[in-house]
Amino acid sequence: MAGVRTEVLHRVTAACVLTLWFSCSHVIALKSQLFTRLGVSPSSTETPINYQTLYFNQKIDHFGFLEDGTFKHRYLVADEHWKQPGGPILFYTGNEGDITWFCNNTGFMWEIAEELGAMLVFAEHRYYGESLPFGQDSYSDSKHLNFLTSEQALADFAVLIENLKSSLPGAQHSPVIALGGSYGGMLSAWFRMKYPNVVVGALASSAPIWQFPGMVPCGDFYRVVTQDFARSGYNCDASIRKSWKAINNISSTASGLQWLSEEFSLCSPLKSKSDALGFKNWLQETWVNLAMVDYPYEANFLQPLPRWPIQVVCKYLGFDSTVSDDQLLHGVAQAAKVYYNYTGSSPCLNTSQTATGSLGFLGWTYQACTEMVMPMCTDGVQDMFEPEEWNFQAFSDECNAMFGVRPRADWAGVVYGGKNLASHSNIIFSNGGLDPWSAGGVTFNITDSLVSVVIPEGAHHLDLRYSNDSDPPSVRAARALVVKYFREWIKQG
Amino acid sequence: MAGVRTEVLHRVTAACVLTLWFSCSHVIALKSQLFTRLGVSPSSTETPINYQTLYFNQKIDHFGFLEDGTFKHRYLVADEHWKQPGGPILFYTGNEGDITWFCNNTGFMWEIAEELGAMLVFAEHRYYGESLPFGQDSYSDSKHLNFLTSEQALADFAVLIENLKSSLPGAQHSPVIALGGSYGGMLSAWFRMKYPNVVVGALASSAPIWQFPGMVPCGDFYRVVTQDFARSGYNCDASIRKSWKAINNISSTASGLQWLSEEFSLCSPLKSKSDALGFKNWLQETWVNLAMVDYPYEANFLQPLPRWPIQVVCKYLGFDSTVSDDQLLHGVAQAAKVYYNYTGSSPCLNTSQTATGSLGFLGWTYQACTEMVMPMCTDGVQDMFEPEEWNFQAFSDECNAMFGVRPRADWAGVVYGGKNLASHSNIIFSNGGLDPWSAGGVTFNITDSLVSVVIPEGAHHLDLRYSNDSDPPSVRAARALVVKYFREWIKQG
Repeated sequence: MAGVRTEVLHRVTAACVLTLWFSCSHVIALKSQLFTRLGVSPSSTETPINYQTLYFNQKIDHFGFLEDGTFKHRYLVADEHWKQPGGPILFYTGNEGDITWFCNNTGFMWEIAEELGAMLVFAEHRYYGESLPFGQDSYSDSKHLNFLTSEQALADFAVLIENLKSSLPGAQHSPVIALGGSYGGMLSAWFRMKYPNVVVGALASSAPIWQFPGMVPCGDFYRVVTQDFARSGYNCDASIRKSWKAINNISSTASGLQWLSEEFSLCSPLKSKSDALGFKNWLQETWVNLAMVDYPYEANFLQPLPRWPIQVVCKYLGFDSTVSDDQLLHGVAQAAKVYYNYTGSSPCLNTSQTATGSLGFLGWTYQACTEMVMPMCTDGVQDMFEPEEWNFQAFSDECNAMFGVRPRADWAGVVYGGKNLASHSNIIFSNGGLDPWSAGGVTFNITDSLVSVVIPEGAHHLDLRYSNDSDPPSVRAARALVVKYFREWIKQG
Repeated sequence: MAGVRTEVLHRVTAACVLTLWFSCSHVIALKSQLFTRLGVSPSSTETPINYQTLYFNQKIDHFGFLEDGTFKHRYLVADEHWKQPGGPILFYTGNEGDITWFCNNTGFMWEIAEELGAMLVFAEHRYYGESLPFGQDSYSDSKHLNFLTSEQALADFAVLIENLKSSLPGAQHSPVIALGGSYGGMLSAWFRMKYPNVVVGALASSAPIWQFPGMVPCGDFYRVVTQDFARSGYNCDASIRKSWKAINNISSTASGLQWLSEEFSLCSPLKSKSDALGFKNWLQETWVNLAMVDYPYEANFLQPLPRWPIQVVCKYLGFDSTVSDDQLLHGVAQAAKVYYNYTGSSPCLNTSQTATGSLGFLGWTYQACTEMVMPMCTDGVQDMFEPEEWNFQAFSDECNAMFGVRPRADWAGVVYGGKNLASHSNIIFSNGGLDPWSAGGVTFNITDSLVSVVIPEGAHHLDLRYSNDSDPPSVRAARALVVKYFREWIKQG
């Protein structure tokens, strides 16, 4: 998941609604780029991947009987290496986006299919990609959005699998293993917890199942981001920490705003104080995203980026305390361009595109406004950001204004067990030490059947990506261990 | 649960809709008697029970955010023996009726509270008793009924418990054990499966969690009923098996219908063939109910009854094969009156009361028409009833005509795991050998943590009732074993 998402929502200012949408628009700009990149072949391998695209008539509402309609639930199947009868099924529990994108970016599954004789299934999450319960109307209002919940998505997965097993020759006794990364990893873990009759185990990669109220300190997420920058270059975090005040100083005048806009090559120049607020949010989101994709090789996940991109970014931020605001922000602009214009093909940085159709973002915003309440905060001391408290009430009010719904702070903890998971089994929680989402992840063994795998040099679900010559030994070991568990579960299953 | 309920619905005849409602009306007559008896003190003890009646503001919809309303969820609390801080909580997962009735009829909890230092909580099931999500409108149409599901009820229980634990001084670390009988027992088992973070274990008494499509033969239920009669008196089952044809013969004429009505002291005389059909259903339901309440002592559960009531009933049914239709049906009438008029206070047998307000029955009918699809069938050979196949399509059509909803045959199996439960833990499934619902129950150990306790001489959840001098040793042993498990779970929890 993009760190920006919940962060956007908890930024409460005097002009919060404006800020919210303004800030959203940055994200939408990012995400629409992301989604237009669908169908591009995976970045670090030339292996062509072949799958069938299929659709299942899924109930719109699993938990009520008034709405009896169905929708076309998309899933992708690759059975080239499947040993039937009874060969295992590796089932990707799709997250908040187009499933083909996750399919292309989960090389790990493609690489282990042959050795496990496994069928691969990638199931889309309802309300994303093509799996729209009400077609074009799915996002039209809170009535149509009402069936966008993780519980419904898990039920989709369960019903789909039971249907596959009963209808596919040779699949009846196939053990099924759930896999997912980020929110998809949370779903994998929860899927095993709630439907152990359907899946024999789960790999939950970079899954912040504890990033919920009362489970982890709200500041830990941004602390990890800050550590990533601190370790990647001289004074890198300190420069960013200082940059917010510099932006405040410079943006206090019209000429300052113009200068800033030019330095950052913004497509739409900043005009007002609230523009500057949005600009800061956009920058903050940029640093978060860099922390998530700080991979040891050139990659194109959220953006095309060099290897260890934070190190490259930090080359522009190695200032001493005597640096002037202008010098500092010049460096920050250069740093931002590493993220937004590594290929040199962007004529300007697009921070103010107005909202157009990225369902992925809207859907996640709705989910954050309902079940996926993930407190975030900053203090400017243990992290490099402007201090901002977590304010649930303000967050709830914004959600209500946006969607006509209010988040339920405690629900995720009740329904998914919070810290009290010991009675479950067969779940691997893998986390990268560089990944800010590891702050809300399971990074210790809960029992010998609920195990943690930490990849110190890993960013966001590095282990699920295609293997690469530059992979650190820790991720190679993690993948090998995961396969070992998979084999055990398959034997049990 | 009353055996009649699903049975009513699967009886498909040429005049099915009429039959359905006609037959329902009998049940409603029964059930309204049942509910008017609320508040009566428990039958086999004079121990007064004291509890507080409390209400919790519960979300109407846990699985969607459009409907944000709440309702008053009733629960009863008895903390006289509770050892705080940290003493255990025994939590009754209420089933399809007024919770005070279950509270009064679950003497086992009252009897073990002191030795365990436990608080007792009895939580009502939504849509029953006073816990009506939309007040008087709760049953007005399928829109208002939409939130009547077992998943919502389990979520109610989970949210209520989490709230109690965080708000009651001394309860924060209290281990909670779920208990329930019949459908309430199914809920207890499912509660532990779905919310092991909330309850450390469950006693599921007489819980037919496998009485779902494809899990057990549809005829087993009535086979157990038949065995109960076969063992309780000479030719008792054979006489009942023969009675249906005798009713058909006699009811083929108007004078026969009149004779039948007089023999059975019916409040509303039978007038037509379809009346006779309803009459047979009513009789069949009577035998089923007797099998459920065949207790070794005088009791007043569904009706005031003598000890071992089937033995008393069978005294009127010990006919040889030469018996005439008249003689046979005279005996059947006497037998039926054991059930309906043991106290001698009923001036007539009420088989045609029109539908008035037993929410309990309507609610369960809706649940049977949605999630709780429990196939039943008879063959007249291995059971003593007229042959009737299970016809899902006809059942579904009836549900659609009644409520505008259609049952989902496979859903319960997917969501609650069917036969694939081995990864769960800490559930005791107790079943009575006389109880027809044991046919759909767990009567063997699945693992050493999912255990079965069979009480050969037990009818429907005998173990949950107050202890009695006439209790067979098997139920005493069962209760002792249950307490032993509870102590272990409490120690773990």
